[in-house]
Amino acid sequence: MKLIRYGNAGKERAGVIHNGKLLDTSPFAKTYDEAFFESDGLVRLKEYVKANHNRLAHIGKTERLGCPVARPSKIVCIGLNYADHARETNATVPTEPVIFFKSTTAVTGPNDEIIIPQNSVKTDWEVELAVVIGHKASYVTEAQAEHCIAGYLLHNDVSEREFQLERNGTWDKGKGCDTFAPLGPYLVTPDEIADVNNLRLWLRVNGKTMQDGTTANLIFKIPYLISYVSRFMTLLPGDIISTGTPAGVGLGFNPPVYLKPGDVVELGIDVLGTQKQTVRAYSK
Amino acid sequence: MKLIRYGNAGKERAGVIHNGKLLDTSPFAKTYDEAFFESDGLVRLKEYVKANHNRLAHIGKTERLGCPVARPSKIVCIGLNYADHARETNATVPTEPVIFFKSTTAVTGPNDEIIIPQNSVKTDWEVELAVVIGHKASYVTEAQAEHCIAGYLLHNDVSEREFQLERNGTWDKGKGCDTFAPLGPYLVTPDEIADVNNLRLWLRVNGKTMQDGTTANLIFKIPYLISYVSRFMTLLPGDIISTGTPAGVGLGFNPPVYLKPGDVVELGIDVLGTQKQTVRAYSK
Repeated sequence: MKLIRYGNAGKERAGVIHNGKLLDTSPFAKTYDEAFFESDGLVRLKEYVKANHNRLAHIGKTERLGCPVARPSKIVCIGLNYADHARETNATVPTEPVIFFKSTTAVTGPNDEIIIPQNSVKTDWEVELAVVIGHKASYVTEAQAEHCIAGYLLHNDVSEREFQLERNGTWDKGKGCDTFAPLGPYLVTPDEIADVNNLRLWLRVNGKTMQDGTTANLIFKIPYLISYVSRFMTLLPGDIISTGTPAGVGLGFNPPVYLKPGDVVELGIDVLGTQKQTVRAYSK
Repeated sequence: MKLIRYGNAGKERAGVIHNGKLLDTSPFAKTYDEAFFESDGLVRLKEYVKANHNRLAHIGKTERLGCPVARPSKIVCIGLNYADHARETNATVPTEPVIFFKSTTAVTGPNDEIIIPQNSVKTDWEVELAVVIGHKASYVTEAQAEHCIAGYLLHNDVSEREFQLERNGTWDKGKGCDTFAPLGPYLVTPDEIADVNNLRLWLRVNGKTMQDGTTANLIFKIPYLISYVSRFMTLLPGDIISTGTPAGVGLGFNPPVYLKPGDVVELGIDVLGTQKQTVRAYSK
């Protein structure tokens, strides 16, 4: 199953992609949020769509898509989880996962603009596979973690490198600016993915390929990450873990290359769809 | 005005303290969350209480208190914002604010237990003044920031020092464990505080004073902090900024002193009330 949320930012309605058709499911689910996932919404939605797909309204192909998940309680990101990316940023390959947070106010739709913050000179890209939590997870084992997964989605972990690395304190300062978390186009449930550890992920800037990796190279795999994070905090239904980025970010070039107004960023992961963002400068 | 939320965890109802009486305001406000603050709830609540206080149900003094704010989108913490605390932890006094996040799943009531996480050996305390945001804040000036404050509350920024400092990555790993954010007992609106930069804050463990400071020693003051944070992320109504802790944390002792099961932590800030937590070990 593929879940989407569509419509104007902040007013998104629930939908699914069923047999290639975009169908409105808002009569069934107000939105896809913590309460939806917590109440076994995915199971109930599947039955609902199976029984009603011929009756559901079609969504226009020109509708804006939002993040498929509404208001996650948190977005936990894993740093340096591909060895080639650790090398390109002169970081040590971690012996256990690096955790940081992204402010949830950074969330946007997959094709919305990326806004370069005021005083930013180092806004960068990062294609990532993100996992959505389906069931509350606290101190779960790797085997239990598998059952806590609602699905997967594509994430551009946009990052301001000066804010992140040169402005005192933790990485969080450069990760949570508005529009820094394009998520979607859809949440794909695990049954639709043959092998989540064998997906190609790529990112282009103005048509030029910058990142071209595979989730086969994830240092820490997804069940381990969920189990690991759940030792430090409780994961709620709808929470998102972003699993890290492969080599090819702007910071890794010599000299580094950063986004500027007018740039077009395209990215994708096998099965999880694609995103396209135009970059613009912040204005009041 | 003093706002409280009371009742069992996860099922708290809204209330106020009016002329020393605990009054139920749940007929007026379902809870104090983003939607409440966003819709000028504080102004409306004040009028409601003024008109109806004689008719409102009294809340029993034995009722559990929860965090006065429901489900903030984020808790932003400021690190090393008292020079004496920076010194005791061998950190440099920062030239601009250090920002990190606390997972909102860490939030508990002011007198709930502190649970030492599994495999923790360095669970520590930090008395802090926290600010609640009343209006959306993005790129606000210090003058504008003053108008974005809903109120203040007491926070124990419980911290696991090994998770925070010795386990790879950012501080977030040691700050967001369940029960690591006791908040309350009440949210105090700014009109009730003569000078927020002249409040004594203290913390005792088993009756022994460990922290005894004053907000006069805040390096970065509150309007500056709000303005600063709002350059890196949008602050939503109900969001919390915790402003840092003075000297006297367990990490600062030689040798360090950490919490163990059975310990009793008491803390307070002038005008903002007191908290009392018993410490216990995690158990399934």
